[in-house]
Amino acid sequence: MDMNTDLNQHISQQFNNELEELRNHLLAMGGAVEKQVSDAIESLIQADSDLALSVRAKDDDVNFMEVSIDEEAARILARRQPAASDLRLVIACTKASTDLERIGDEAAKIARFSMELAEHGEAPRGYIEARHIGNHVRRMVQDALNAFARFDADMALAVAQEDKAVDREYRSAMRELVTYMMEDPRAISRVLNIMWVLRSMERIGDHARNIAEYVIYLVKGTDVRHIGLKRMKKEVFDTGFPES
Amino acid sequence: MDMNTDLNQHISQQFNNELEELRNHLLAMGGAVEKQVSDAIESLIQADSDLALSVRAKDDDVNFMEVSIDEEAARILARRQPAASDLRLVIACTKASTDLERIGDEAAKIARFSMELAEHGEAPRGYIEARHIGNHVRRMVQDALNAFARFDADMALAVAQEDKAVDREYRSAMRELVTYMMEDPRAISRVLNIMWVLRSMERIGDHARNIAEYVIYLVKGTDVRHIGLKRMKKEVFDTGFPES
Repeated sequence: MDMNTDLNQHISQQFNNELEELRNHLLAMGGAVEKQVSDAIESLIQADSDLALSVRAKDDDVNFMEVSIDEEAARILARRQPAASDLRLVIACTKASTDLERIGDEAAKIARFSMELAEHGEAPRGYIEARHIGNHVRRMVQDALNAFARFDADMALAVAQEDKAVDREYRSAMRELVTYMMEDPRAISRVLNIMWVLRSMERIGDHARNIAEYVIYLVKGTDVRHIGLKRMKKEVFDTGFPES
Repeated sequence: MDMNTDLNQHISQQFNNELEELRNHLLAMGGAVEKQVSDAIESLIQADSDLALSVRAKDDDVNFMEVSIDEEAARILARRQPAASDLRLVIACTKASTDLERIGDEAAKIARFSMELAEHGEAPRGYIEARHIGNHVRRMVQDALNAFARFDADMALAVAQEDKAVDREYRSAMRELVTYMMEDPRAISRVLNIMWVLRSMERIGDHARNIAEYVIYLVKGTDVRHIGLKRMKKEVFDTGFPES
């Protein structure tokens, strides 16, 4: 092995390490955000203001992670000029970091309404639905991140499909709450607080779906945003391979 | 001038054209989205279901623009390996395309509630606020795009500052509507429709602010997300220049 090959191998090893690190940082951010989501749900169900406060306090950490992942990605783009699947990984990381940050924002909003409800009176309805939908979207975030970690397009497709179910659950819960509001107008502002919580949960589901779509882009090389589940499924199960 | 220099100049001219085209496509997408926002507001104020329907129909075009801008950006990254301010331009375009697409989504949601209100009964309150906040965020989107077109960090900073004012207007309008709901529970579902409209408008303001932050990143080379307006102002007025 001549010195040149040695040097090239060294550089390529370093490059691989950098990509691996970027991905690890994204997954670490994902872990932090997932914790924010489950703590936010917990703070609502347990009427735990302290926990809610800690969710809001940690939002800064998540914001910082987003900025540093994007910095890292820009540095790799500038220095390493990645191509094909390496390039897709860098792009997917920087897109996913934005969605993770927004999930963190929604968790912080949920925590804010938890505090409101814990301190100024519980809502008479909506907690069962919030727990149910909350756990549903928390699992979607978790699965989207697992799909990212394992480059698993099938699992990513399953996450995208779950989003439809969440939307249905959300709409049905909202209808019920509107009906309840009309029956008991004194509860309006407390029920509204639960409605905003459900709204944030539904948004978290959307962001988990976005992340799942980046995983499919990463693994399959196809941008599956906005194409509908049926065509998305076709892209995932298509036996063709993207340019590696 | 030898052939080599000639060739290099030719390649670099082509590269510049590609960057220019990418930016033009982003601005064209921006124009389409801005029109979606103003049509959505108009459909609400005029109770014009046909206009609302056309806003929803055009959402697909905007989605398609997002995907093709991201494709174009990935192609430039892979083939041209841009550095410094060129790289920042490519990154800013792909980040901004996502926010523009989300603004389009919010405009489509506003249009959906406009139809609901036009067909199943107007809300008794909230139109003045919706028109006011709607125009405010429409101007923010417009200014963010102008700042992008002119590489104008000062204008971008002004957009970011406006977002605070929109948040205040939004909160005060929501408080009023909650009060009104309690006074007249029969109007609850109609007032809720206007609340969702206001909510979407507030989100449009957030996205315009995001785009403004990418402009500052592009021009100044600093990521100003999450740092607060005071430090953002410092970055913009700092006399230092980023690596070109």
